[in-house]
Amino acid sequence: MQFSKWGEEDFIQYLSTQFPKTGAIVGIGDDCAVIPESPDLSWLVTTDALVEGIHFMIDQISPLDLGYKTIAVNVSDIAAMGSSAKYAFLSVAFPKELKADWVKQFVQGIKEACIRFEVLLLGGDTVGSLRDVFINLTLIGQASPEKIKYRHQAKVGDIIAVTGHLGDSGGGLKALQEKLAITDAIQPLINAHFRPEVNPEVGLWLASKEAVHAMMDLSDGLNCDLPKVLKQSSTGAIVDIDKIPVSMALAGLCRTQDWDAIALALTGGEDYCLMLTIAAEAFSSIQKAFEKEFGKSLFEIGRITDSPNELIYQKQGKRLITNFNNYNHFQ
Amino acid sequence: MQFSKWGEEDFIQYLSTQFPKTGAIVGIGDDCAVIPESPDLSWLVTTDALVEGIHFMIDQISPLDLGYKTIAVNVSDIAAMGSSAKYAFLSVAFPKELKADWVKQFVQGIKEACIRFEVLLLGGDTVGSLRDVFINLTLIGQASPEKIKYRHQAKVGDIIAVTGHLGDSGGGLKALQEKLAITDAIQPLINAHFRPEVNPEVGLWLASKEAVHAMMDLSDGLNCDLPKVLKQSSTGAIVDIDKIPVSMALAGLCRTQDWDAIALALTGGEDYCLMLTIAAEAFSSIQKAFEKEFGKSLFEIGRITDSPNELIYQKQGKRLITNFNNYNHFQ
Repeated sequence: MQFSKWGEEDFIQYLSTQFPKTGAIVGIGDDCAVIPESPDLSWLVTTDALVEGIHFMIDQISPLDLGYKTIAVNVSDIAAMGSSAKYAFLSVAFPKELKADWVKQFVQGIKEACIRFEVLLLGGDTVGSLRDVFINLTLIGQASPEKIKYRHQAKVGDIIAVTGHLGDSGGGLKALQEKLAITDAIQPLINAHFRPEVNPEVGLWLASKEAVHAMMDLSDGLNCDLPKVLKQSSTGAIVDIDKIPVSMALAGLCRTQDWDAIALALTGGEDYCLMLTIAAEAFSSIQKAFEKEFGKSLFEIGRITDSPNELIYQKQGKRLITNFNNYNHFQ
Repeated sequence: MQFSKWGEEDFIQYLSTQFPKTGAIVGIGDDCAVIPESPDLSWLVTTDALVEGIHFMIDQISPLDLGYKTIAVNVSDIAAMGSSAKYAFLSVAFPKELKADWVKQFVQGIKEACIRFEVLLLGGDTVGSLRDVFINLTLIGQASPEKIKYRHQAKVGDIIAVTGHLGDSGGGLKALQEKLAITDAIQPLINAHFRPEVNPEVGLWLASKEAVHAMMDLSDGLNCDLPKVLKQSSTGAIVDIDKIPVSMALAGLCRTQDWDAIALALTGGEDYCLMLTIAAEAFSSIQKAFEKEFGKSLFEIGRITDSPNELIYQKQGKRLITNFNNYNHFQ
């Protein structure tokens, strides 16, 4: 059997049987591993690989943006658990033909993000590759144990919310893939794809609320990521399609191109905003406080149910039969 | 300018100017980054990338050995600073054609090494790649701050020693590259290349000795690695070629193939034994205790001098003019 048919989820499942959880340490299956250090402090560790031809096209993304994104997507994982990123370790494999100027620009992007997110780059590895650029970042954060939010904490009756519009990055990627002319109307979507807006302050703020139960960042698209929360917390969900927040820029592009905005919003991936579940009785006050604090909306999109692993989409109160294709790196 | 002409050392130098050292944290330039956690505890972090076609040939090394080696070479970095490895984070990029059986064997190799070295695999990332297999491992260790050995601690007059034979792995690699028939005589060298013998117990034991000053693991060959210690400690070294420990297996192969055993020992790389400097007056007693403890030799090979960055090889007391070519991943 080829690895592509086995797939990432099966592989992670296999890994988790081979390397079972140990004591208080949370490992494979959340945004980060959590290592308790003392009663007041846990270390969080996350790692993300970016591969040329799979995660980025080297003739499309600038090295500056790629460097920035390398840090930002990992900061997003740490923020999704309610922690602050502190220390980064960067591995790169570069083919020999790569220009030194490209590498310097890439490093400048890393540096810019390290300053923005107050991260220290402490080490890494630099090696050659035969053909493709390969990047891996490991990011370490610290948090008070009681502030950490996990995927398994969703409770029946919780409101499901997201902290930003969905699908902008996916729309930008599709525009690039279909070689559309990059107009002012499309540019914000391209920007969302190349330089995702990650706000760790939002994660920290939400983590400080007891009524916020489960939290994760949306990197593979809600249709792929929400089931991870449902699985870990043995719950289900009803998502209201009419409430999925789609930006004006994405809606406009989808209209002119006759693309399905909702499909892009649910499966486009790389949103890097947060998805969370909140105790229903506290939702309204948290939503208001969020809008006051950050000047933007906290979008209610659905509700947690008691049907394990069942994700239902509804539109105007009626169940929708959908068949979204999630992105699979291996196919 | 191409990145290959810039080279790894220049890149690391550039990185260290862009990301300067911060407070008590030791970052870029040692085997591991050291993060002080409390007066009694520091965290050590190392990361290593292995790339198909550069670090391994997928039709030569078994996935079991590759998995084992992925953990072992990082354990060696942690051991080189006198610390115990604890937590591992594995990123892999696999092309879709790769067989699921290969992946399972690779995971078994990881698992075998995790058991041997008492390491917990806590997370990682699994992604696709266009063509080549990429592997990255980040390994975290813990140590008492006063036990940690750094590269910058070599002192003038110190004895330079190594904990094993040099060049076996390089000889095994050369035998593979030249497609020699793998006889019983050659097999140990192949084994040294595919499954390096890493003994973290040796590093811990040496780290407990105050008279041991600088320490690092030999991964790029002594001719490439010793200058790193000299640079960091502003010292020089005289190495006695006659004292370089070469195994009978390597010496035998070099005789039959007319290869230069000393060149292989100094530049072959991937030895993964430790190189250390020891206060001269303590050397003899540490050497005896080492042999008693581990049943193998601690080899004296030279002495630290006061000429910054000057590495002199001598043979029968006479200075040798050498021109070894270190391995460069980028050429």
